[in-house]
Amino acid sequence: MDECLPAIVLVEPQLGDNVGSAARAMLNCGLTDLRLVKPRDGWPNPRAQAMASGAREVIDNARVFETLAEAIADLQWICATTGRRRDMVKDEVTPVEAAHQIRRRSAAGERSGILFGRERIGLTNEETVLADAILTVPLNPAFCSLNLGQAVLLVSYEWFRVADETPPRQHIDDGYPRATRQELLGFLDHLEEALDAGGYFKVEEMKPSSLQSIRNVFTRAELTDREVRTFHGIVTNLVGMRRDQL
Amino acid sequence: MDECLPAIVLVEPQLGDNVGSAARAMLNCGLTDLRLVKPRDGWPNPRAQAMASGAREVIDNARVFETLAEAIADLQWICATTGRRRDMVKDEVTPVEAAHQIRRRSAAGERSGILFGRERIGLTNEETVLADAILTVPLNPAFCSLNLGQAVLLVSYEWFRVADETPPRQHIDDGYPRATRQELLGFLDHLEEALDAGGYFKVEEMKPSSLQSIRNVFTRAELTDREVRTFHGIVTNLVGMRRDQL
Repeated sequence: MDECLPAIVLVEPQLGDNVGSAARAMLNCGLTDLRLVKPRDGWPNPRAQAMASGAREVIDNARVFETLAEAIADLQWICATTGRRRDMVKDEVTPVEAAHQIRRRSAAGERSGILFGRERIGLTNEETVLADAILTVPLNPAFCSLNLGQAVLLVSYEWFRVADETPPRQHIDDGYPRATRQELLGFLDHLEEALDAGGYFKVEEMKPSSLQSIRNVFTRAELTDREVRTFHGIVTNLVGMRRDQL
Repeated sequence: MDECLPAIVLVEPQLGDNVGSAARAMLNCGLTDLRLVKPRDGWPNPRAQAMASGAREVIDNARVFETLAEAIADLQWICATTGRRRDMVKDEVTPVEAAHQIRRRSAAGERSGILFGRERIGLTNEETVLADAILTVPLNPAFCSLNLGQAVLLVSYEWFRVADETPPRQHIDDGYPRATRQELLGFLDHLEEALDAGGYFKVEEMKPSSLQSIRNVFTRAELTDREVRTFHGIVTNLVGMRRDQL
């Protein structure tokens, strides 16, 4: 399966720090196939190793190539990241679309790669022509420059995200079960009695709507059984204070 | 409108570099409301300014607070980023769900904020309790640590992306219109004649399927009119070479 993970290809990266942070970003998203075309400061690079920290395995397994053609020789679909339009006829895709394409192709046994250019000047036109599509990250048009590590992070993250099945919203708890409706209503009755005893409901005909508001707040809060017991204690305590004051 | 952009709240950030890269990430995604709770190295911070480079306006307009409670005083919905589950009863949302919530609330005039903790230890439980929801970025469970700037980037990017209308796939061109079908067929006829003249179709009954493959390749390539002219020239040139060789 691993062989169908997309390759991240950095073309003539200048700073080891950026290669290291690209490696971290890749591993954050489960990617491991890092390829470098003529890194400016040679290879291995201690700055890249230091910056990669927990992602050393990605750095240590990175492959270095003399030319882009060699780096992409085994790939079947390639997209080239660029922030600028170029005067060439080519499909331009978003990171989400690229992620879907790569996953679809990967499922069919095809190998994909994503090209990232030099920090300052990106990819040349000659390099971009080698790609099937141009990948542009939609960003604030007034400020769209990303550093290399961040660009690798966003593109890798989309690849991860489109297959991620985390529910958008989960209720997490502290180990106590959510209160049963009987427990909740028991507390609401306790509160109502205490308020009745204290003369809280001054206008009898307002009592139903008043009670409804109060019940709604506690129902919405999705209390655990422990929290219900806590609130019984709070009411008892407040009633006690009231008695003490009499 | 601006007042409904979500605030990014960094709680006791330690490194100016990280505050600077958070500011860049925010502006990349169109966010500008940066709030800092007790930045360790004081404020203003030259490292933050240097790292922010093009996003200096975000740094220069950042507001500094003594306590988290003051920093979030005007907000109506708050989520707290954390990589770890905590023993507390709370909703946990993905960045996509948080982005939708914030946009929905913003459209209704509510102000939201996203909390990010200290580089080393994140947010305390006391701080996390102040949030309506916990935001966790789904990542490779075996390597999910993000630095502060990267976390701000991913969360801000999702906020930007969920409202971004860039088509997933666009065909970009070099200014020349796509060839009409007549132009394309004209070229395919030219090619067929040249191949006929050269005796390319050795077995007459194979010719239709052979031609079909060739026609498919050129049709799939979505040629511009200029590219069709280029290919006419290529065929003419190759035929010329053949003649020269006779």
